Formats: sequence, structure tokens, C-alpha cells
Amino acid sequence: MTTLNNLSLTELAELRTRGEFDAAALLESCVDRIVSREDDVQAFEYIDIDKLRATPLEATTSLLGTGLEGIPFGVKDLMDTCDMPTGWGSPIYTGRQAGRDAGCVAMLRACGAQVVGKTVTTEFACFFPGKTRNPRNPAHTPGGSSQGSAAAVADCMVPFALGTQTAASIIRPAAYCGVIGYKTSRGAFDLGGICSLSQTLDSLGFFVRDARDLGIIRSALMRGQHVGKSAQPARVGLVRTPHWEEASVVAREAVEGAAEKLSRAGVIIEELEVGPDDGALTDSHKVVMAYEAARARIFEYKNYPEQLSQQMISLIETGLALTATEYNNAIALAREWMLWLDDVLVGVDCLISPSTPGEAPAGLDSTGDPVFSRMWTLLGQPSINLPVGEGPNGMPIGIQLIGRNNHDDTLISHAAWMQPLIGCVVSLDRS
Amino acid sequence: MTTLNNLSLTELAELRTRGEFDAAALLESCVDRIVSREDDVQAFEYIDIDKLRATPLEATTSLLGTGLEGIPFGVKDLMDTCDMPTGWGSPIYTGRQAGRDAGCVAMLRACGAQVVGKTVTTEFACFFPGKTRNPRNPAHTPGGSSQGSAAAVADCMVPFALGTQTAASIIRPAAYCGVIGYKTSRGAFDLGGICSLSQTLDSLGFFVRDARDLGIIRSALMRGQHVGKSAQPARVGLVRTPHWEEASVVAREAVEGAAEKLSRAGVIIEELEVGPDDGALTDSHKVVMAYEAARARIFEYKNYPEQLSQQMISLIETGLALTATEYNNAIALAREWMLWLDDVLVGVDCLISPSTPGEAPAGLDSTGDPVFSRMWTLLGQPSINLPVGEGPNGMPIGIQLIGRNNHDDTLISHAAWMQPLIGCVVSLDRS
Repeated sequence: MTTLNNLSLTELAELRTRGEFDAAALLESCVDRIVSREDDVQAFEYIDIDKLRATPLEATTSLLGTGLEGIPFGVKDLMDTCDMPTGWGSPIYTGRQAGRDAGCVAMLRACGAQVVGKTVTTEFACFFPGKTRNPRNPAHTPGGSSQGSAAAVADCMVPFALGTQTAASIIRPAAYCGVIGYKTSRGAFDLGGICSLSQTLDSLGFFVRDARDLGIIRSALMRGQHVGKSAQPARVGLVRTPHWEEASVVAREAVEGAAEKLSRAGVIIEELEVGPDDGALTDSHKVVMAYEAARARIFEYKNYPEQLSQQMISLIETGLALTATEYNNAIALAREWMLWLDDVLVGVDCLISPSTPGEAPAGLDSTGDPVFSRMWTLLGQPSINLPVGEGPNGMPIGIQLIGRNNHDDTLISHAAWMQPLIGCVVSLDRS
Repeated sequence: MTTLNNLSLTELAELRTRGEFDAAALLESCVDRIVSREDDVQAFEYIDIDKLRATPLEATTSLLGTGLEGIPFGVKDLMDTCDMPTGWGSPIYTGRQAGRDAGCVAMLRACGAQVVGKTVTTEFACFFPGKTRNPRNPAHTPGGSSQGSAAAVADCMVPFALGTQTAASIIRPAAYCGVIGYKTSRGAFDLGGICSLSQTLDSLGFFVRDARDLGIIRSALMRGQHVGKSAQPARVGLVRTPHWEEASVVAREAVEGAAEKLSRAGVIIEELEVGPDDGALTDSHKVVMAYEAARARIFEYKNYPEQLSQQMISLIETGLALTATEYNNAIALAREWMLWLDDVLVGVDCLISPSTPGEAPAGLDSTGDPVFSRMWTLLGQPSINLPVGEGPNGMPIGIQLIGRNNHDDTLISHAAWMQPLIGCVVSLDRS
């Protein structure tokens, strides 16, 4: 029997339409799942089960009819919450109380959604891992930085969770955990109350199990009308990127196999090269991220160096050593290709490309390689990880869809159309 | 005799070169000025004179040779400071302790600069005024939202101060107080630890009394090489904007007079129209600001409505009533004209336009009209207020220079070249 915690937002909306939605039962079902699985998965940095059971649903709903009333969700511990600590994945800020909600959290609460807990982030959303394990196999990394959010959704603890991406922090954990992860177009959402890392790259995102759910969350936040639409793309661009040689056989087959299925369904596939073929966009991403992260974290570097990881110190020192000219050149290259890509994405509806070099690696010391997301994050376009199968180790494999800047609704429609065709079942709770 | 508090950063750098720079004497001189004038000006939301005198200069300087060692500065109370409260101009957050410095504050401290105090901001950097008076005449508004920073620099309390702009929050108070105010290119600086209002529009900025100083601060923050350069523009575009009829005679004469002086000095003046002539860019700015501010402030709207001003509530409710389509249309219009303006600014070196409709209005209930900055803020280009004279009420008048996106150094060079030619003396302390 399918329990409530297994249902997607779209399925829950259908229950609501039939008058069968029971928010208290849904919360209880999610809490049951968390209680039974959290020891293995460790998705949450902070959760108070007793308080959650005792707390009435968010009392006042000022924004009605979004479909999020009574929906539990997870919040990356990079985002401020007025009633839970926000530690940014750093021992420096353990127990930090922000006194207010980040804008996106407050909006979702105003829609009647309920924060279940704070999900684990890597240190300042960078490379040093948190405690979360991959729900599919706890000996493997869930990816990072939004690792708790990806794992919680993959494990059916919550129907959706919030994340952010600066390099690969949504696409990679979504691919490794086998869920849908969506990085929004740059600049589309308020990031107030979210610890900043790179003003150029930081983007909000959501994890869900059904691509159609993305439209529900977006519409709630934006007062949009895009709910449940699904549309076949006419043309899709296949982009191998300059890093194709770094992709494993299974990652390549995932992309090529998806292209084949799309083609058989009548979609025209065009092979495209995006950006210079020497990996300069990936290198520019590294420059921009290090340069900006150094300036975002200079306070901690100066005042609490002994509480920073070596990875963090190295990133900051790399960034401080870069000159304004090196940074400006990287920004200028990004800008040039961004405009070029906007033009390309008039001719094709979206792109497909690998999400990661392969399955989630074994071990919890690293969150894996961000190589297949850096250039797309630099260019600012919206992207979605769509799980398409499993690799030889039984771990999930996904492909990355990339859409046109600020045309996120279109990309979501295409993902929603593709999921039943090429997506695999996204659920771990087979009870 | 000129006292140290009257000196610009450029003049202080000359003292340093001659081995005559004395940080303790400079701080004492600034503090003396603050003590004698703060009752009239009320530039500071928080300042602890005794502690300041007792505190040694920022101890560790990790970034050497920027020219900011031992330089006191003011910080808009929208920006987090680890050792002073940050109240965002709202009674909701009076006494709020952030526990860390905003990125830009931490960078300046790492360069050895010293925070003197927190300068007054309007409520959440919007329209409801703080307590600051115009140093030129305390019966007149200093403008907003960065009102304390503009007043403190105009009154020679500090050589520079930080501000932010979402509509006109740097250009307008700079024009009203008679100082140089510089709004940086959109996205050029980390805004972490600064209360967000609009992710599209929020920009960092600096107030100084000598345009050359802008290069010193920028280079310190960016690891740039642009210090003290001044360059004559070959061509300048004169833009009257669709709001020219709203400019007073003195504001129009300021722009036209500047154009005439530039022309006599050999600069080619071209008359340009920017954007549609129906004021649609200004209207789009209002849409983007209200829509995004509503999402940035939904927490306060939901939880502390009785502590918000009527102006703030009205802005939020306007924003919540806008649809995603209305917002996206405004963003799309901005994007189109931004690309167009980037092209225009290859043909001319910079633009000149009014900073404000006229002198600072009498009264402290309003911060004046932002009409002449909205469209430029929407387009994201860097802009500088250059004081050029006084109006019939004896209050300052400025003109607005607008440069090419991410070519801020060039704009600063032109402002530095223009200041001796068309700028007026910027100093109130004639002791």
C-alpha cells in the first residue's frame, strides 16, 4: 500500500481536489518515515519530532489556493528559519539563531506549507561534506552541497525540499540520490536570509519526485499560473561538453539512450557544441566561484581560521590571489556565451547533457565531481536533473536538462513530458 | 586650517606617501567632528565614541597596501557588523546582533579600515525616513535610503561610507547632500550580510568627496589596479529621459550647463534617447521593486505588520498583487534595453542626466522623489552623482553620470576628470 509520505505534490493535489487531503495524516506519515530512516540517512541537521507533532500547522495562510497548504517540506540549513537554528554547515555557527525566515521560506510558510526541519548542507555549501549518506546505499555519498534535501526527498521523508546551487549543489545530489533537482534561472528568486557564497552563481532550487511538482512550488512563490503543464519539445540539443571524456560509460549511455528514446518519440535531436571546446567555461566558473567566495567568507577566514576546513581555506586563498582582471575576464567570457546560448535556445527547446560523471562514488569524504554542472551554473540557465536509471553499482544515474534563461516554466513542461518516457521510478520507500 | 577629517582618501594617500599619515590623529579628528555635529545631523544609528577612542585600530591586516589602513568609515545600518547592532531601520530589529560582518565590511576591515559606526537607513532601505537631517540645512531631508552615510561624508565626519541602492538610495542622498555617490554595476559585489530588498536591483555603493577615492575603495575590494586615474571622455551622451518635464529649472540647467562646459573642454556631446519615451522603464522598475520587495519582506508582513510603516505595507501589498507575468514582462523589458544600452555605451563614453528633480525638499517626512534614478537602477549600469552647484534655496544640485555595465573603472576615471572642471567644492567643514 502506498503511504501518504510516498505521494508527490501532484498526487496530493489530486487528493485535495477529491476532498481527501488530510494534512495531519500526511505529516504523521512523513514523521514516521523520518523516525524509521533518519539513523541511516542522516538527512537532517535539526529536527524536533516531538515539537513537530505538537505544533499546529502554520496558523495563518495569507496566500490562499497555491496547493501548498499543509504540505511538509525540508529546508537546507543554509537558509534562515525563525524557529530553528541555522548553522550553515560550519562549527562556527552551530546553534545560530537568525530570528527570522529567509524570503523563500517565509513565502512558502505564508502559503501554508510547514517546515519539517533543517537539512544537512556541506560547510558553507562548499566542498567539505556533512554527515548525510546516500539513501540508496549509506556507504556512498549523497553528493553535495544540498545533500540533506536530496536525500530526504529521495527517501520519501518529505514531498519536497529547498536547496541552492553555486557549482553543482542541486544537480549532483539529485543525480546521486535519484530524484528530480531543479536549479532556477539566475536571479529569479530572493536569496535574502540565505548564506551567500557567490553573488554571480548562487541560485535557489527544489527537490521533488515528480517534475510536475516543480510548477506547483514555482507558482506558489511567484504567483504564476504554471501548474501541471506538460509539453513535448520539438527539438532537443545534445551537448557532450568538453568533459565528455570524463564521463563514465553509464553516464554517456544515459544521455545517448535518452536522446534515442526522445528521437523515437518524434523529438528532433541536434548535436550542439556550447562554449569554446577547451573547457574555458568550466575554468571561468572556478575563477568566479573562488574570487567571490573569498569575499563572502573573508570574515570567517580572518576571525575563525581554525574552524574552517582545509578545502574552505584553500578556496578562499585561491580567490584572494586572483586579480580583478582575471575575475572580470571570466565574467566577460560567461556573458558572451550566455547571450550566445540564449540565441541557441530559441532554435532548440532545451539541451540534454550529463548530470555527473557517473554514479555516486563510494565513501563519505567527498561529495563527488561537480564538472558537469560548473559551466551551466556559470551561464545562469535553469537546469533539471532527471533520473533515468541505475549504474552497475545499483546507484542512480540522471541526465541534465538545460533551458533558456527565465523560461523555467517551459523547461519544467518538457521535464514533465519526458519523465514518464525516459525517467525511472523515483521512490525508495517500497513498503 | 584644514583638519584631517576634511581630507579625501586621495589626499590621505599623499600624506601616507610622505610618511606623514597618522591614523590615530585622523580618527580623533573625525570623532571631534562627529561630537560637534551629530546632534544637528544625526547621521548615526549607532556609534560609541568612548569605545571607539579606546579601541585599537583593526589589529590584523591580511590584505596589505590597499591604502585603507587606518581609514575610518561609516557603514549603512542595513549591513551586518560583528561588534555593533544592525537594525535595518526597523523597530522590529532594534538592537539585532548579527554575529558577523557583511562581506564588504569584512573585506574593508581586512584591508585595515576601521568602522566608526552604523549610519542611518530608512526602514528596510525603502521610503519611510530615518532621523537624519541634511547637513547643509537641518530643515531639509538628506534623501534616502542611505541617508546617514551621505550626510556623514558631506559633513566631513568620515572620508567615506558605504550605501546601497535599489531605486535612488545612493544617487539621491548624494545629490541632496552635495557629495559624490557611486552605485556599482549590478552584481559586481557580494551583498551577503546586507538586508535584501530586491535581488534584481540591490547594488552596493560608496560616498566620497573626491571622485578619485572611488578607485581606491574599489581596488581594495576587488584587488584591482585602478587608483587615481583620470581620463577625459571623447563623447558624452546627454539623456533628458521621459521625465524631463518633472525636473526643476535648476536641475535642467545643471545638466545642460555641465554639457556646455564639457563641450567647451573639447568633449563631443550627443543628445540621446534611452528606452521607450513613455516612461515604461520607470514603471517596470516599480513593478520589479514591489514584486521582489514583497517576497523579501513577507516574513515581517506576516509576523510584525503592526511594526511596519504604511509605506512598507503598501509596497508589499502592491508586490503580492502582481502576477508572475507582469513581473516577467518588466524583467524582459529591462533586459532588452540593457543590451541596447550596452551597445550605445560603446559609441559614447558615458551619459549625463539629472540626479534628482531639484534641490532637497524642505521637511523630514519624505526622502524626495526617486524618479531620475529608477530607470538607471533597473538597467544595472554603474552611476555616479557629481555635485555641480547650488539651487535657489542654497541646497546642492548634482548631475548623474551613467557608465557601461562592468566598466565602472572607466566611469570613475571620467568622473575624476570632470570633477575639477564642472564639480563644485564638496565640503561643509570650513573651520
